[in-house]
Amino acid sequence: MKLNCDLGESFAAWKMGLDDEVMPHIDMANIACGFHASDPNTLQQTLSLAIQHKVTIGAHPSYHDLIGFGRRSIKHSEQEIINLMHYQIGAIDGMAQSQGALVKYVKPHGALYNDMMANDEVFSAVVKSIDRYYRPLKLMILSTADNERYQHIASKYSVDLLFEAFADRRYTDKGRLTPRTEPGAVLNKQQVIEQVTLLITEGVVISNNDNRLTLKADTLCVHGDNIEAVALVKEIKALCR
Amino acid sequence: MKLNCDLGESFAAWKMGLDDEVMPHIDMANIACGFHASDPNTLQQTLSLAIQHKVTIGAHPSYHDLIGFGRRSIKHSEQEIINLMHYQIGAIDGMAQSQGALVKYVKPHGALYNDMMANDEVFSAVVKSIDRYYRPLKLMILSTADNERYQHIASKYSVDLLFEAFADRRYTDKGRLTPRTEPGAVLNKQQVIEQVTLLITEGVVISNNDNRLTLKADTLCVHGDNIEAVALVKEIKALCR
Amino acid sequence: MKLNCDLGESFAAWKMGLDDEVMPHIDMANIACGFHASDPNTLQQTLSLAIQHKVTIGAHPSYHDLIGFGRRSIKHSEQEIINLMHYQIGAIDGMAQSQGALVKYVKPHGALYNDMMANDEVFSAVVKSIDRYYRPLKLMILSTADNERYQHIASKYSVDLLFEAFADRRYTDKGRLTPRTEPGAVLNKQQVIEQVTLLITEGVVISNNDNRLTLKADTLCVHGDNIEAVALVKEIKALCR
Amino acid sequence: MKLNCDLGESFAAWKMGLDDEVMPHIDMANIACGFHASDPNTLQQTLSLAIQHKVTIGAHPSYHDLIGFGRRSIKHSEQEIINLMHYQIGAIDGMAQSQGALVKYVKPHGALYNDMMANDEVFSAVVKSIDRYYRPLKLMILSTADNERYQHIASKYSVDLLFEAFADRRYTDKGRLTPRTEPGAVLNKQQVIEQVTLLITEGVVISNNDNRLTLKADTLCVHGDNIEAVALVKEIKALCR
Repeated sequence: MKLNCDLGESFAAWKMGLDDEVMPHIDMANIACGFHASDPNTLQQTLSLAIQHKVTIGAHPSYHDLIGFGRRSIKHSEQEIINLMHYQIGAIDGMAQSQGALVKYVKPHGALYNDMMANDEVFSAVVKSIDRYYRPLKLMILSTADNERYQHIASKYSVDLLFEAFADRRYTDKGRLTPRTEPGAVLNKQQVIEQVTLLITEGVVISNNDNRLTLKADTLCVHGDNIEAVALVKEIKALCR
Repeated sequence: MKLNCDLGESFAAWKMGLDDEVMPHIDMANIACGFHASDPNTLQQTLSLAIQHKVTIGAHPSYHDLIGFGRRSIKHSEQEIINLMHYQIGAIDGMAQSQGALVKYVKPHGALYNDMMANDEVFSAVVKSIDRYYRPLKLMILSTADNERYQHIASKYSVDLLFEAFADRRYTDKGRLTPRTEPGAVLNKQQVIEQVTLLITEGVVISNNDNRLTLKADTLCVHGDNIEAVALVKEIKALCR
Repeated sequence: MKLNCDLGESFAAWKMGLDDEVMPHIDMANIACGFHASDPNTLQQTLSLAIQHKVTIGAHPSYHDLIGFGRRSIKHSEQEIINLMHYQIGAIDGMAQSQGALVKYVKPHGALYNDMMANDEVFSAVVKSIDRYYRPLKLMILSTADNERYQHIASKYSVDLLFEAFADRRYTDKGRLTPRTEPGAVLNKQQVIEQVTLLITEGVVISNNDNRLTLKADTLCVHGDNIEAVALVKEIKALCR
Repeated sequence: MKLNCDLGESFAAWKMGLDDEVMPHIDMANIACGFHASDPNTLQQTLSLAIQHKVTIGAHPSYHDLIGFGRRSIKHSEQEIINLMHYQIGAIDGMAQSQGALVKYVKPHGALYNDMMANDEVFSAVVKSIDRYYRPLKLMILSTADNERYQHIASKYSVDLLFEAFADRRYTDKGRLTPRTEPGAVLNKQQVIEQVTLLITEGVVISNNDNRLTLKADTLCVHGDNIEAVALVKEIKALCR
């Protein structure tokens, strides 16, 4: 089970996340591309760090919304989504190739990720943008009980999907994430260990209604926000070996 | 003699330049990359227009200074210049390749262009950024009486230079552009025609002190700012055939 | 009948609108504050032009969305709306007072304007922001068949409303603007003259279903985008005398 | 002796500085205005925190350079400096007055501060901007051995100056700050205590050449970047009582 983590989300003089500490323990780095976070200097340093630790590089593009950290839904046409995807993927990919590496996959960030999962038009636009990018890239999306629907759309454009599960989020019966605003939505450390263990051994999570839910997971999303988060990543990594 | 023109410099809701009108008459398009002008939608449309008219695509990167249109000198380290060059070139190149085209050369914009011509450290940083980009690109710079100096630095990094002359600017005896603040710095239409004709036929310009100056010119820089400028481009194009 | 016009919407190197041409013919200038358009230099020049022509100064604040020209709906909390309103109003008001003038009213821009008219929570947040601003300011909103509802909310906070009608837009039976996407939504010149004449003389507009609709109008919104628009403003001004 | 501190320098999702921890121990808050750091939400919260702790509010305006945190010198005309000063001061002042407080002084940030101290034209432009602001404000500048020169320019415009000394920086014989790049430029904790004690008791600092230098200081600049810095502020505060 591969661990993926959002990082490279510092911006200019502002530091965010313990990238140096978490990078050695993950397999896939979802690297911000400058529209919700990052800048050319942060990108170069984050790519260099990923390459040094032999971590697979993913683009983590977003709506163009620095002030909202890409967390606010903003309506876009299909062509606009394709354009902002290609601009950001091109930027990180050009920088990565110039350091001797390649972007391998794309994981949309924040509101673009949520909108893609909630709205087939947005999902189709994202898939098309991957399809039309000049090199083949995989697309990482949320694993739910409804994976076939996304698979169906993606296969029309021959785009390969990677399904990610969340180590630290409670699932609903439909295999969706319980909203953060609800109690128990974010798991404590012991619960994370249990959820990861069950997912690895049986491919199952226990929902917020105590039901067993089969969940496909190519990769687990983990976090490197602070020291506690990084310590937990190390424990999860040990489970995944 | 190839004609090159800065374009794709609209931004969001703001339109600048008559790109549709001038594109059919030029050979090389220096396309803004989002740091002094342009955005992903403008870039996509400008690339599409260049491809439609079989115009060679160049990246026109800049300091990160939208509010100053990239016209203000800002001190950068070598690594910072490499990073901002790779980010912008990667972005336009990823978009161009996704439309079936390739960026062929780079012409820095505004203050970055001026700083590069005035300061060997900046020029070296620009040359290194081209050298380290993962695909070969040419670098377009100002032709002066001092081309060997730039050629010497560029050859250390095996970067090919393209020298541009200006159709509408009066040259000094040193083959530099007379500052715009001086009277007669910008030529009138008749003077443009004369300067271009002499340059094409004899490879010579007449300086502001009435001296004949041999000037290497791989390409002529023209403008598409307004209707008069576009009409002049058509006349220059006729001379160059 | 006072004429109001959105202006000061240039940004950095990009010019938008014929402010110099339209300013002499209007009574109230809705001046952009830097979040969807404008910058400190544009603001200073626009304020100076308004003062020179004795035009009443209004703030035209927006969501923080330069790339979308403030036209995209973005969800905000009440406190966030108050903050972005106070920042922008404070900026233009400090600049105006330093030129010897005063901001007299506020007209929200684009998506903030539309959201305010469509959503009572947004409208209340806008009204509260005016109420809590340290000086009294009026709030300009769209006149509809439903003015009492807005008046009721505004009166809770002792905020005076100004109702604006549109010279060039076809109204629905409910006194709303026909969406621009529908045929006939934007009136031609002759229709504008008729609509303005009827509104001035009888306080009535003819809806898209040919019904007479009584419409309160403290001010008429006109445009200065281009030469034809400015010519029409002069004609409307003559009718209003 | 009053303590002043730069704060309110978070931006959007990025947190910078321990404002909550340092605010109780300082007398004057230099609050970022949105051009090098901050945003309307950060500004509102920082103003609220300052008001709660009865800290005098100062505007901390900057060149328009978020990506460079206002630390890069960028050439501006006098009018441009006045405009960016008035915009930023107006914004924070409008927000402060709407919370029942008043901005009392201005301390330029970063490169604008350095350029003002190094270049009389920039200093004059800053002084003029304060003079032309519609309410009287004081201007905080660096205390050096050369205070009369600045005082002379400021008095032409009837602008009151506040001179600040640095608790943690080694001075040159000319009463300038030793550049950070030189060894010993930043004092250790024990040296800070000694420098502050000597400054309070005798109005003197010891220069990097071990000379005694008389230095006028209306206020001491301290920092709240991290836990150690805040602990030192508490010790300095105790000395100043």
